[in-house]
Amino acid sequence: MHIHVISSVNEARTEELQHKTVIVIDVLRATSTMLTALANGCRTIVPVETVNQAKSMQGKDELLGGERFCKKIPGFDLGNSPLEYTSELVTGKTVIMTTTNGTRAIQKAAKASHILIGCMLNAAACARKAANLTGDIVIVCAGTQDVFALEDGLCAGLLIDELLRLHAAGAIRGNLTGPNAPAYVDDFGLAMLQAYRNVQDRLLDALLTCANGKRLTKIGFHDDVVHCAQTHVLDLAPMVRHGRLEA
Amino acid sequence: MHIHVISSVNEARTEELQHKTVIVIDVLRATSTMLTALANGCRTIVPVETVNQAKSMQGKDELLGGERFCKKIPGFDLGNSPLEYTSELVTGKTVIMTTTNGTRAIQKAAKASHILIGCMLNAAACARKAANLTGDIVIVCAGTQDVFALEDGLCAGLLIDELLRLHAAGAIRGNLTGPNAPAYVDDFGLAMLQAYRNVQDRLLDALLTCANGKRLTKIGFHDDVVHCAQTHVLDLAPMVRHGRLEA
Repeated sequence: MHIHVISSVNEARTEELQHKTVIVIDVLRATSTMLTALANGCRTIVPVETVNQAKSMQGKDELLGGERFCKKIPGFDLGNSPLEYTSELVTGKTVIMTTTNGTRAIQKAAKASHILIGCMLNAAACARKAANLTGDIVIVCAGTQDVFALEDGLCAGLLIDELLRLHAAGAIRGNLTGPNAPAYVDDFGLAMLQAYRNVQDRLLDALLTCANGKRLTKIGFHDDVVHCAQTHVLDLAPMVRHGRLEA
Repeated sequence: MHIHVISSVNEARTEELQHKTVIVIDVLRATSTMLTALANGCRTIVPVETVNQAKSMQGKDELLGGERFCKKIPGFDLGNSPLEYTSELVTGKTVIMTTTNGTRAIQKAAKASHILIGCMLNAAACARKAANLTGDIVIVCAGTQDVFALEDGLCAGLLIDELLRLHAAGAIRGNLTGPNAPAYVDDFGLAMLQAYRNVQDRLLDALLTCANGKRLTKIGFHDDVVHCAQTHVLDLAPMVRHGRLEA
């Protein structure tokens, strides 16, 4: 099992993701919001890059969701707060979604063999799904405006922790080099694993201390950070297929 | 006190380092070798970028040191192993030195207010010196071939740990915002701090597990890794002034 971690969407090169199992992480908040929406009954999420793309795709049964600069886009039905995506609003619906970093990371993974969507909420389920797919695993931390974001790094560490546990138990299907071959984690991944293990018992504190956690708290989204800091509460491992994300 | 950490020399932009106190780290092995040489009586180290530059500067009292692809450069007196730089060889001497990543990082910091050279060996002394200088602190991890190297990240974490301790004790001269102002560490720095704290009691193991540690062990430099994993054993905080490094 080979695991590589990319520190921000800007560092991700489409070629490096080709034929890989790619896990896209944007803990605060895009991938946490997508997972919450699907858990609350949303049928499909269509990630798109631009606001105009989103608007041009909207039919009468679709909701528009997303943000620019952490705020809801004028004319959109929903912002990027996971707590907005309630069962009442999203059950059975398709959400067309555009966010600053998360959607870009998904676009960059267009040539991957598989694209999984990960966050703290579904980390265990996401790791199990990745372990069942063949090929090297690349974890893409979306980051914020092309800069590394701690919460994504800690989530990468959490996923690696889960993957190494599965590897030790012989449960990695993609381990073409045999069950006894050592797992390879690149240096950046090792650093994220160590960082995660250092704060695993106080993840919420860590998320409230990082740049995005502070920014979101300041503009009234403290509860979003609390929600996104929960681990393993959703048993879903959604994949992007033909540009659509389904549970 | 503001602390930023740059993950590899490729990510360092000269403008971002301007007017800052810059600490350059290349634990395996350039900065560890420089520190060991100075501790063993070497008078001056002149870091240069190219092999030809080094050769053209050599007079009869100067030694040439450095590496390409972890190996000694043909015609040079010394390689990049700290253990080569014994008192017998280097006392009173000037060493003109070129390494793949460490020297490039120093060149990029040319417009900084101060350039300090750090490694595990002198981390406490280096942090104390940085705390006595004014201005924001930028820690540049040299990395390896433009990729993050774990040992540099862990050393950055160790330096931040020391700086935060000094800050809590009110011993940061550069703290223009007052002694009670909270220290600011960027997200990448926080991740490195957490990673360091997770492995601080088994740093040698961590260094033997990362890519450079494994590579060096494989080609016969296991003892170098053991040497470079020691913390706080050298009470030196050398600075680069007018292109020369002195104790």
